[in-house]
Amino acid sequence: MEKIQLGPETLLYPTPAVLVGAVVQGKPNWMTAAWCGIASSKPPAISVAIRPSRHTYAGLIVTECFSINIPSVELAEKVDYCGIYSGAREDKSQLFECFYGQLEQAPMISQCPLNLECRLRHNLDLGAHRLIIGEIVETYLNADCMTDGKPDPTRVNPLIYCIGSMAYHGLGERVGRAFALGKKKS
Amino acid sequence: MEKIQLGPETLLYPTPAVLVGAVVQGKPNWMTAAWCGIASSKPPAISVAIRPSRHTYAGLIVTECFSINIPSVELAEKVDYCGIYSGAREDKSQLFECFYGQLEQAPMISQCPLNLECRLRHNLDLGAHRLIIGEIVETYLNADCMTDGKPDPTRVNPLIYCIGSMAYHGLGERVGRAFALGKKKS
Repeated sequence: MEKIQLGPETLLYPTPAVLVGAVVQGKPNWMTAAWCGIASSKPPAISVAIRPSRHTYAGLIVTECFSINIPSVELAEKVDYCGIYSGAREDKSQLFECFYGQLEQAPMISQCPLNLECRLRHNLDLGAHRLIIGEIVETYLNADCMTDGKPDPTRVNPLIYCIGSMAYHGLGERVGRAFALGKKKS
Repeated sequence: MEKIQLGPETLLYPTPAVLVGAVVQGKPNWMTAAWCGIASSKPPAISVAIRPSRHTYAGLIVTECFSINIPSVELAEKVDYCGIYSGAREDKSQLFECFYGQLEQAPMISQCPLNLECRLRHNLDLGAHRLIIGEIVETYLNADCMTDGKPDPTRVNPLIYCIGSMAYHGLGERVGRAFALGKKKS
């Protein structure tokens, strides 16, 4: 297959469409982010790329905590809204029902089936974005998103963002089981 | 909805199933990773969490470059194989057709529709994992994965890994257009 060279591009498939939560000037605020990934297992850590000009950034560096909220596809419109409008001009504090955990200043979204409560650990200047690395201190999952005692991604029904086509997608068909499909036949 | 507290967990949906490429002891090697995310736009950067005990890690810290290869669902079996068996014991150098770009020591996989050629920029010790941050110096996309002059994720047909159920999935139905769905009606 012929390859096209596109120059350096931030092309990765898939990326999640998450809502980053922080208290900014005393109010919960939500920012949409797709540039988010797990960073370590022990302690559990997550990274999210945020421009330092963002309203959310101004909050999380003060409180030193934030949340990552994983929405289901039903929330696509609100997720997109939070990616278009800045909390500096639009009050997003009433958009969702909000709850707090042990860190007390990491607001989380009740309507999102999965929430990660994070303590700020690293703030890495990478140029246009800061890579914010948080230690995950607690994980909240809707009770109906468990199957056989394990988190079930098909019940979370996460929203996926695709760069290039700028489209949101849902999770597709199951392809097979990890750590099994590729086992050598003996 | 009632929330269950799971304790601190690395639960994020979705995560990509990528193949990290590096030259180790003179041979290309491939490691499966799901903990990968875009880290900045300018310069374009990507992060991937790797345990320092990994064979791939031993290579990329010497050559100071690596690749991120995005497989399509058809490659699920080989992707899983690369996540089960270490290059320290299995020679994976002949598993794929391999090509090189400007960095000369970042091996890339011809069979993967999308390849990111990366120069090592940061190596952050987060405990169990190192967060490897690479500057993306070139992007290679299969010519048949473009639609209307733009990268088309449905043609890339990326493989998705879901923690919890340990299942691979494909990309699901299109939900809507980003930066449009959530626009306020005026």
